[in-house]
Amino acid sequence: MQRVGFEMKIHPEMVEEYKQRHDDIWPEMSDALVRTGWRNYTIFFKDDGTLFGYVECEESFEVSLDGMSREEVNQKWQDDMSPFFQLPKGAHPDKNMIQWREVFHAD
Amino acid sequence: MQRVGFEMKIHPEMVEEYKQRHDDIWPEMSDALVRTGWRNYTIFFKDDGTLFGYVECEESFEVSLDGMSREEVNQKWQDDMSPFFQLPKGAHPDKNMIQWREVFHAD
Repeated sequence: MQRVGFEMKIHPEMVEEYKQRHDDIWPEMSDALVRTGWRNYTIFFKDDGTLFGYVECEESFEVSLDGMSREEVNQKWQDDMSPFFQLPKGAHPDKNMIQWREVFHAD
Repeated sequence: MQRVGFEMKIHPEMVEEYKQRHDDIWPEMSDALVRTGWRNYTIFFKDDGTLFGYVECEESFEVSLDGMSREEVNQKWQDDMSPFFQLPKGAHPDKNMIQWREVFHAD
């Protein structure tokens, strides 16, 4: 298992809609996350639009990211999510995550 | 249980010593964290000195913070950690955490 922390950035004024879309996540997208080893996954938001994702990857972040990139539903999800993000038009947020370094862990 | 994400800021050039101190955390400090409901606690670091703490509080963040503030060992720990942080001299980092908002969670 690999614990991962990563950063992304949305347009802060879109946070309520971003949260609503995630409250209503497609069941196929949830299934794909489980299938590709995303466990105990939480996204936090800060007022300036920064998102911090915390996830426990069953095998590794690389394997879980690669797994999702092969899921058809994820391509549609990333297209749908793209306008929320502070990224060039059409860019997929899952290709633009900035990984942070783990400096402490206690069970 | 309450999942919590919070931000703090250290002097980035001090990260290796900060990590070393946490690798060598005092057993009394670990015990106090367990006793006051800090579970699955991870701290991530970004190059500019920002730290992101992820923790699952047994009851609530408020109860866990309040519990630690009453632990004698924590007062010593916070005094020791103070110089690492971008805070007024002597300020305790555990009194200066900026909490982020949870916008998504999947088990």
